Order: sequence, then structure tokens, then C-alpha cells
Amino acid sequence: MIRLGNDYGCGALPQVMDSLLALNKKGLAGYGLDEVTEKARATILKLAQLNAGNVFFLTGGTQTNIVALDWLLRPGEGVLCSAEAHINVHEAGAIEACTHKVIALDGSGGKISADSVRKYAERFYADPTWPHIVAPGAVYITQPTETGALYSLAEIRDFRGVCDEFDMRLYVDGARLIYALGSPENDISLPDLGLLTDAFYIGGTKCGTLFGEALVIPGRRSPREEQRIFSLIKRHGALLAKGWSVAAQFESLMADSLYLSVGRSAVERALRLRHLLENGGVRAAWLSPTNQQFFCLPTAILDNLARQLAFDLWGAPGDDWSVIRLVTDWNTSDDDIEEAAGIILSKY
Amino acid sequence: MIRLGNDYGCGALPQVMDSLLALNKKGLAGYGLDEVTEKARATILKLAQLNAGNVFFLTGGTQTNIVALDWLLRPGEGVLCSAEAHINVHEAGAIEACTHKVIALDGSGGKISADSVRKYAERFYADPTWPHIVAPGAVYITQPTETGALYSLAEIRDFRGVCDEFDMRLYVDGARLIYALGSPENDISLPDLGLLTDAFYIGGTKCGTLFGEALVIPGRRSPREEQRIFSLIKRHGALLAKGWSVAAQFESLMADSLYLSVGRSAVERALRLRHLLENGGVRAAWLSPTNQQFFCLPTAILDNLARQLAFDLWGAPGDDWSVIRLVTDWNTSDDDIEEAAGIILSKY
Amino acid sequence: MIRLGNDYGCGALPQVMDSLLALNKKGLAGYGLDEVTEKARATILKLAQLNAGNVFFLTGGTQTNIVALDWLLRPGEGVLCSAEAHINVHEAGAIEACTHKVIALDGSGGKISADSVRKYAERFYADPTWPHIVAPGAVYITQPTETGALYSLAEIRDFRGVCDEFDMRLYVDGARLIYALGSPENDISLPDLGLLTDAFYIGGTKCGTLFGEALVIPGRRSPREEQRIFSLIKRHGALLAKGWSVAAQFESLMADSLYLSVGRSAVERALRLRHLLENGGVRAAWLSPTNQQFFCLPTAILDNLARQLAFDLWGAPGDDWSVIRLVTDWNTSDDDIEEAAGIILSKY
Amino acid sequence: MIRLGNDYGCGALPQVMDSLLALNKKGLAGYGLDEVTEKARATILKLAQLNAGNVFFLTGGTQTNIVALDWLLRPGEGVLCSAEAHINVHEAGAIEACTHKVIALDGSGGKISADSVRKYAERFYADPTWPHIVAPGAVYITQPTETGALYSLAEIRDFRGVCDEFDMRLYVDGARLIYALGSPENDISLPDLGLLTDAFYIGGTKCGTLFGEALVIPGRRSPREEQRIFSLIKRHGALLAKGWSVAAQFESLMADSLYLSVGRSAVERALRLRHLLENGGVRAAWLSPTNQQFFCLPTAILDNLARQLAFDLWGAPGDDWSVIRLVTDWNTSDDDIEEAAGIILSKY
Repeated sequence: MIRLGNDYGCGALPQVMDSLLALNKKGLAGYGLDEVTEKARATILKLAQLNAGNVFFLTGGTQTNIVALDWLLRPGEGVLCSAEAHINVHEAGAIEACTHKVIALDGSGGKISADSVRKYAERFYADPTWPHIVAPGAVYITQPTETGALYSLAEIRDFRGVCDEFDMRLYVDGARLIYALGSPENDISLPDLGLLTDAFYIGGTKCGTLFGEALVIPGRRSPREEQRIFSLIKRHGALLAKGWSVAAQFESLMADSLYLSVGRSAVERALRLRHLLENGGVRAAWLSPTNQQFFCLPTAILDNLARQLAFDLWGAPGDDWSVIRLVTDWNTSDDDIEEAAGIILSKY
Repeated sequence: MIRLGNDYGCGALPQVMDSLLALNKKGLAGYGLDEVTEKARATILKLAQLNAGNVFFLTGGTQTNIVALDWLLRPGEGVLCSAEAHINVHEAGAIEACTHKVIALDGSGGKISADSVRKYAERFYADPTWPHIVAPGAVYITQPTETGALYSLAEIRDFRGVCDEFDMRLYVDGARLIYALGSPENDISLPDLGLLTDAFYIGGTKCGTLFGEALVIPGRRSPREEQRIFSLIKRHGALLAKGWSVAAQFESLMADSLYLSVGRSAVERALRLRHLLENGGVRAAWLSPTNQQFFCLPTAILDNLARQLAFDLWGAPGDDWSVIRLVTDWNTSDDDIEEAAGIILSKY
Repeated sequence: MIRLGNDYGCGALPQVMDSLLALNKKGLAGYGLDEVTEKARATILKLAQLNAGNVFFLTGGTQTNIVALDWLLRPGEGVLCSAEAHINVHEAGAIEACTHKVIALDGSGGKISADSVRKYAERFYADPTWPHIVAPGAVYITQPTETGALYSLAEIRDFRGVCDEFDMRLYVDGARLIYALGSPENDISLPDLGLLTDAFYIGGTKCGTLFGEALVIPGRRSPREEQRIFSLIKRHGALLAKGWSVAAQFESLMADSLYLSVGRSAVERALRLRHLLENGGVRAAWLSPTNQQFFCLPTAILDNLARQLAFDLWGAPGDDWSVIRLVTDWNTSDDDIEEAAGIILSKY
Repeated sequence: MIRLGNDYGCGALPQVMDSLLALNKKGLAGYGLDEVTEKARATILKLAQLNAGNVFFLTGGTQTNIVALDWLLRPGEGVLCSAEAHINVHEAGAIEACTHKVIALDGSGGKISADSVRKYAERFYADPTWPHIVAPGAVYITQPTETGALYSLAEIRDFRGVCDEFDMRLYVDGARLIYALGSPENDISLPDLGLLTDAFYIGGTKCGTLFGEALVIPGRRSPREEQRIFSLIKRHGALLAKGWSVAAQFESLMADSLYLSVGRSAVERALRLRHLLENGGVRAAWLSPTNQQFFCLPTAILDNLARQLAFDLWGAPGDDWSVIRLVTDWNTSDDDIEEAAGIILSKY
């Protein structure tokens, strides 16, 4: 069985697991106040070229979105995002649980535009006597999107512009950011995110750690504000007693550019898979430059296919054909790709 | 039956009801955007000697506390108050419904001190590595308190000091503020509140209007922040379509110093009642300088007393004696007081 | 100036104001525990042919939606409604402030169908291993809708069916219910709503009271559950100290069928206005059988028109034409209609 | 340096770490839908002698309390607990963030009594016309408490009784449950908790796993209700993509009674430590039968002591003496105990 159904099926990179084992009996300060966390924080701030800022090591993507948006948004403000955004359709109402409306904008490929953000903000502020719609407080985007698309640096700059114009904050969900950084089409770097966003996160769960996400908050704040963020993390149940257990994994992933080779290899293999399948006549549902690939296949062959290949059924837009998702990750081998392509083409 | 059980049993001052009738068929802009509201806002800002600020006309005390504290507090912050505070024990968890912890401090007579506030804030900020207790965001006090006590101007200044020291906001619940202003022992004026608080409200429901409270927010803010407050009011269901119906009542109450005579008369009658009862040997439970008075009576006489006098049973701290509350309001007459005293003393 | 811009511009029906004046100095129990409230409750339950149930008298529509949905929904559940629903676009995030997601379904004329509800519920329950989308907890519909359309009795029965099938609750927002009841095309009665919904409200603010809505909750519950609803009302700041002031208005409106003549007259005048305008060549944007009417007019004439007629600009879908809303209410006269039609046609 | 400052300073038991390594490249279903989770769930249900019920594997104590109480409480209900309870003072307002009031009752040793719970519930339900205080929805207790005390089986049965009487739910926070189970004074078993509570959790973080808590919810519920719990977990950001990573640790800890030997050894060592210190003349601040011990020491020696022994400063109740906490865990050795006692006595 070849497993390409998702990028969170296996544990962690061997180097990452080793980092945990090495610290197992060390005895470290609790709640992320230890030297391991301090080091991993410094590593990430350096990679993002941030002289000031903080990094918090949390356990999952939804949790990180909760913490970030509950801090970024003021009471009553909503967050603008794509209708397909993870916070809108796959987090069981996590942002609403923090009392904030998720405001879905139109777009395509899971992307929205700075223009659609501007239109909403202009409509809200056009009439100061009209308090009935929800105030726009933040823009949420995902890099890459749920369907594998990438924002360009120019687009992120446009978001920054509209956010500055309307006192909004910009937040980037980077659950698969490492696969964006590994894509040949990507032109956004960690320093760009450090410079242009109010917060972003580097996902670990889908990119080689056992679990964990690194929430980066650029800029200098008062000690009291830092303490308030720390307190928000606690009140959302997101503060691990053994905080070093996430930090150590990130130190291992980020310090020696391991993340770059993980990202690049996974994307190369994903693109290789698409190349093989397209050569064999299979149509890509859309062109993703990252580790998720989407293909159109006859619905009739799927049951049979599932016996040899773990894939993700994405949808069945046609009467007799479906879209499947195939995903590479840190644990995918070249052989997996060749074999998967062979299996699909043999049934196509 | 003499009714001294509470100060919200009757409708409104005749002048207040007249103000509603006069506007009934006028046709005015909705949601408080009308000229009547504008005028009442100006009247109150002038009385508080505020060159900048806003006044929002809401319908009840709990609702006003919700709006004010949801605006004043940031996510995760709690509000410090007396253990007997209305928000702690009589609002069915309204502030927690906005996700904020109500943090009860010790005190007496429903009062807390700036010192107890400082102690909590110091404890929170003493250790930046300890995010486990709730961050102090605001101080809530009531003038007068639930048991009739008054804060002095010196005390309010101390609260302002400690709030400034620890980035906290100061909020005064004035459900019975007009009876504080009418007390001979009071030394806090509307301009003092305008100068020293981040927000306070002038209660109407207990002081002569049919319903309604005037939330005063001193200071100049950006138009966007004003719009955000407006939006918060809407999202808490606190925005009346016919907003002028509250504003008109307040204009009637405040414009020609009607509020001062209402406050003074009610307090005079309350103190007269205490004088009469004490002279007759009845012991006051504690000395309140405002419109609520508290007396110790034998529990055995209460059933009988209730046939002629509507009072409020406050508690039964002793085996055979109880504390009752007697309250005067805009509708209490001198005769009511004499008669009530006579009834009580005849049974005592 | 003829005022047809909305149905909340004036105060209250003379009979309603009289009911307030008559009680002004009576002295009644607080918090809706008085005999006036008891009588109004009985009146409404009788009109809805409910042997068991409760009626709560609140102050506004958004507040009523907050109380009803916070009671009807369990933690984490969302409410399904039209994308145009008041709770989705005009309440500043009031339902999200209670931590619930508002889930917008497609539809037309502000209506949704039981089928679209079923599709969502089936999708949620299809895969018990997929907790990522929001659980459907209730259906929210408005009778009539924001754009004047009516649901039929058959449609409401279908909603009841799908709600029963998927353990969902059915809630009807009746901000303008009295104008639905007054429409010749309406076939849903108060007893139908009592029988088929889990809760609904009869709006007063737009239908002849100074303010206030009557939330009807059919059925028998344990005393503890009744107390919990009462407590929820308090915690949302929706419990008026002088609760009788809303109840008295409703008693006046409902007891002698005043509401029926208010509803019928307003709708007759609305339809007469449409008749006059259509005869004069003005096109209705869509056919509303209730008190709100929508017309297509050249954008160029609107500024001039606004000098003589207060209308509501609904939108500008074309390059040079706009849709305006004209609304009748309890205070609209036959002369207003003839005059308004004359003004519009003179400029058309 | 001997480390007895807390029980979350080290990683995990070797067997627990091995269980993670063994599965690292296996490839398992996401979100706890895998066979490892299924097995661990079965193991725990069997230990608690539950024929029906569910076990959810979460990452931390505060998170588990959030999920459990957000499910157990209905909107507006509060949770009764000790003033010293973790949810009241050490979770940064996590329960209030779910809109629920934490209602602190008096008690001693971090314990409350069924009587104090009954008094609150009786006060709430005494007057159905008084919706102003918060409705009691659940009782939260900790076994053992924050200060090491144990509830007895008789006490838990009393809580069950009062909860049944007033429609309340009973929840037990078992962050250190394994050390209660290992105490010679304990008479409450896992089956007792399964029988008597509505939910409880078995803590891993402080008892030998790298992280993780097992939330046990006894009883049979509809599939829809199970799905709703699952959804609540997701919306609180508590659903790990690699859910098996917690389950595997618990399987390792619980399956072969490893937890019993961990609990017993740690408590034996804690009691041995107390024995040694008391013999040397050091006074215990109070007598804890579990893994946390509290001693009175001269404040003057603490700085010096801290150079050789990591302890937790619990408080400074006297002018010149303090209370320190010493904690054993799975990683404490007999030598640690002897050495720690020697160090303390040498300075005493």
C-alpha cells in the first residue's frame, strides 16, 4: 500500500525524534521557559530576520489559529478569508467559539484578493451611522492554500497595504508553509513574512514533526503585552507543561536547513507525480505548485485503486468522474511516486 | 400599602412621560442618529464638562455593564470588583458570557480599595513567566454601592492612579448615581467622573425614567473606534431602533437639573426615615448616606409588617432578627415616610 | 415630507401609549413578575392556542434572536439561515458573540428551503469520523423575509420535518410578523407557529409599540428549565426591571385584535401603493405581498425625490437605475399613499 | 542538583517513548480514528469497568477541562469548585473563555463538600423568580487536590447524590490521578469514577507520558451526541492530527499496570521523604498522602538550599518561615529522596 492520502499520517523525521530522546531525562523548566525553547525561538527569529519578535510553540493548526486570531482581533471584529479557508470550513467553529465572525469572501483556488478585502472594508466604513455589519479586523490567508495554490510576494504586499489603510491585521496560516518554501514557483521568504504580517505560523505537524506549530509574532511589544499573549495561550489550553518538547522538534527541523530539503524534496516528488500522470493521459484538476496534487479520475476505478493506494477523495463534480488528492510529505520516497503513478496508470 | 421595597416599581416622572408623548408621531431617524439623541448627548457631555466624548443611551444596567466592559477589556483580561458587586452576584454571569472573568476582591460595604487592586496587579506582573492567573484589565466600582455606601473623590483618584500604573481601565456603574449626587456626604461630581474614569453610566431606570441608562465615554477617539463601539452595542442587542425614546427621557431628566432635585429629595426622605426609626429605637444595620436604608427588625414581626408596607428582606443574619431594606425614589412622598415609620414603630 | 423609509420611525399606537400611562404610578413587581405581564402572556398563549408555553417580553429584535438562539443551540452548534438573514448580515455578529456560527445557505428572496437544510445536515452526519464542519443545531427563518417574501404553511411543515429528522430546532424571527398576518397571501397563523416551531417572536418595534418583542416558547418544560431561560435573559442584559412596560404594550396590541387591523391596513396600503405606481409605469423590483415594497427608479431622480419623500435606498444594481424600498406601518394613512404615488409619478 | 520542584520537568517513561518510536513510520489514520487509539480506548474502558463510554486523548489539563466543561455545561450555567481549584486560579480564565462562570466555594485543603454544593443549589432554586445568580451546572473536583489531599469514596458518592438531586453533572480533574491511585489512603478506584462521574480524566503529563490526558466519558450516548463531542474537541483546537501519538503513550502506561507501579513508587518516595524530614525535626505544613509534600522551612535557608535542590516555593505565611513543595514523579529515585533529605536537614 502506497500512502499518499495526506501529510500527517506518519510520525516525525528521525532527526526530530532523536531531538526528543536526547532531552528525555534532562529536566527542564516548564511552560516554555527553558533554554531549548529559547534557542529554537532565536533560530526562527534569525531565519525570519527579525530583531524583535516572539515565537510560541503550540500543538496544532486550529489551536494556533485560535490563539493568533483571539489576540489579533478586538471584541466584535470579524476576520476576512476565502470561503474555502480552513477557519471557515474545517475548524468546527473554532473562531466563532472566540466570539468572532468568519467573513467569507469570494475568490478562486482558495485565494482572495486585496481588492475584495478593500471592498468589504470600504462598505463597512462608508457609513459611520451603520453599525449593523461586522467590523473587519483581520485578513486570514493560507500559504499555500487548501488546494495547493500560492500567493505571490506582490499579493502579500497588497494585503499589507489594504490592512494598513483600514487598521486591519494580516495573518498567514502556514500549516504547509514549508512546502510553499520548497516550491519553485514561490517568491515569498520567511523574512518577507516577518516584515509584512502581524503574525504567521510555520507548521510542523504536516512537515516532519510529531506535532507542533511555531507561531511567529514579529515586532517589539511591551513586557505586559507579551505577558498577555502568554496568558491567552494558557487560557486556550495551548500551553504545554513540557513546552520544550515542541521547541526541540522545531530546532531540529529549522536549525540546519532541514526544513528546506524536506520542502523541496516533497514538492519535487509531487511535481514528478503530476508529470508522470499527465504523460499517461491523466488530467490534473488544477495546477498546484506544492505538495498537494489533484487529479481527475473515472469514479468507477476508485474502489479498485484504493486497494493499492491510499488517496483522498476530494469531490465528485462530474457524473462519472471524481477529483482525488495525492499528497507527498517528508516520508515520501521516489519509489512511492513511481509506484503510485504505475498503479494509477494501470487502472486508467 | 406603602411601597418602599425598591426604586424600580413605578413608571416615570411625569415630565419624562410627557417628553415621550410629545415625540410620539414626530418621525425620527432610527438607531440613535436623530436630533433628540444628539441634544441629550450634548446636555450630558456639558454637565460632565467634557469637550470630547460620547454618550450612548441603552436600556438597562446589566446591558450597559456588558457593553462597557466588552469594550474596555481585551480578550483574556478580567475585571476586578467587590465580591458583592452587581456584576459578580446579580447579573447571571453576563460578564463571563463575554468571556471575561469577574475577579472578586475583599472589602466592606460593597467597596474595595485601590490597595487591594494594586496587590492583585502586582501579583500578576511580578512574574512575567507566570501566565496562569487572569490578567487585570479593569476596575469596576459602583457609586453608590449595592448597600448604599459612597466612594470619596480621594478614593476615586486612588483608583485612577493604580489603573494608570498598571494599564487598567476604570469603570463606574452608576445605576443609582443620581442618589449619590443627591447625598450630603457625596463629594464626587459628574465632571469628576468625566475626568477620572474611562467610562461611567448615569442610571435612569431607578431614578425616574421608564427605562434606560446613559453610558458616558469621555475622551476623543478615532471615527473608526467610535464606529466599533456603535457596532459592539448592536452586537449585544442593545441598540434600540427608536433610540430617541431613551434619549428624550434623559434630556427631560438632566437638562433642567430635574435629576438634582430627584436625587436630593429621595435621599432627604431616606435619611428622614432613618431618623424617625432610630428615634423610635430601631437600629440601622449600617449607616447609608443614600436612598437605600437598612434596618434590623425582629423576624417575628415581618409577616405582619408586610401587610401594610412593601419592603425588601435583605437577610437574616441573626436567629430571631432580620435586616430589611427600605428604598426611596422619585415617587416617594413625605407622607409615605411618616406613614412607613409609624407602621414600623407600631409593631416594633 | 411623506415618510415611507422604514417602519420604526414613529413612536407607538395611541392605545399602546395609553396603556403605559395608565400604569405609570401603579407600582408593580419587578422583572416581569407582575400581573400585567401575566395577563399579556396569557393573551398571547391563547392566540397561539398553546395550553403550555411561555412568553418573554424583550426590547429588540437582535436581543430576542440572541436569547432564543443561545437557548436553542448547544455549545458548538451553528444555525442555518439565508445568506441575507438578519442574523447573518445586520446584527454585527450577535450570534457569533454567543460563540455560534451562522451558516449561510443559498436561496432567493431571503428564503431558504427545507431541502438545502437537509443537504447540510446529511453532509454533517454522513461521516461520523469527520468533526471538522459545524454541527447544525437550528434553522432560522424570517416571516416575512427582509425583502418582504412569505413562507407558506407547507414550507414551514417541511422545515419542521427536517428539523425533527436531524434533531434540529426551528426558530422564526417575526420582527414584521404582524404584517405577514395581515397579508392576503399568508396562510400561516399564530397557532401554526405555536404548533410547528421551537420558538418564535412577535415583533412590536416595527408594528406599533414604542419598543419590544414577544418571544414565544411553546411547550411544557421543567421549572428548572424555565428558570434557566429566565437566567439566560438576565445574562444577556435583556431583563427589564419594569418588565410590565413591554407587556402592557403587547396586551394593548394583541388583546382586542388591534394587531390584525394594524397588519391588514398597512399591507393594504402597501399593495395600493404598488398598484398606483405600476399603473403609472413604475416597475416593482419584485412582488412583495407584505408592508415593504421595492421599486426600480432612475437613479437620476432620487435626489430630487428625497426632498419630498423619505424612502430607503436598497441598492443600485444597474448603471442608471436603483431599487428603493417603501414601507408602510401603523402610522401610514391613505393620504400618505396617494401623495407618495403622486410625487414619484410626477418625477418618473 | 536534585529536582523535586514539580512532576512535569522530564520527558516520558522509557516504555512510553518506545511506544512512540515503534509507530513512527507506520502510517495511521488521522484524528484519532486509528487502531492504536481504538486499543487504548478499550484498555481504559476495561480498567474502569465501563461497558459503554468513550475516551478522548487530549494534550493538556487545561485543554481537557475546557473540552469537558464546555460539553457538560449548558449556556449560562456555572461550575462549582474550590476557591483553590485549578480552573479558578491557574487556567488564565479558560472556563470563562467558554462563557461559564467559575463559582468558588469555601473549603479546606483544596476540597469542597457536597453540603456546600447543596447550599448553593438550594439558594438558586429556592426562588424561581430570582434569575440573577448563576445557575449551578456542574461540580468540579480534583483528585488529589492541588495541595495533595484526597477525597474519599463516601465523599464522591455524596457529590453524586447532590448532583442527581439538582440536575448537575460531576467532573473529576485527574491531572495527578495516578498518584491518588498509588496512595495507601486512597479508596477510590477507576471503576468508582466510571460509575459515579459524568466525566473524569486520567492525567499523563505529570505521570509519565511526554504529554497527554485521557478524558473518560462514561455511558452510552447517541451517535449524534458522540459526533458533537468530537466536534467540540476540534473547535477547541484539541484534536491532534496524529491522535495516536497520545493514545500510544496511554496504552503503554495503562495496559500492563505500569501506571500502578508509577503511582505507588512515587507516593512511597514522597512519604519516605516526609518521614525522613519529620524525623529530622522539619514540620510538614499539612499531611498529604500523595506525591506532593509541603514543608515549613526557615526562609533564611532557601537561597542556599536552592543551589542543591530544585523545590517549589509555595508561600511565605510567616514572617521568617516559608512553605515549600517537594514533588516526586516517575523519574524520582530512592537516592534522590535520601539525598534531598540530607541536603535539607544539613541546612535546617
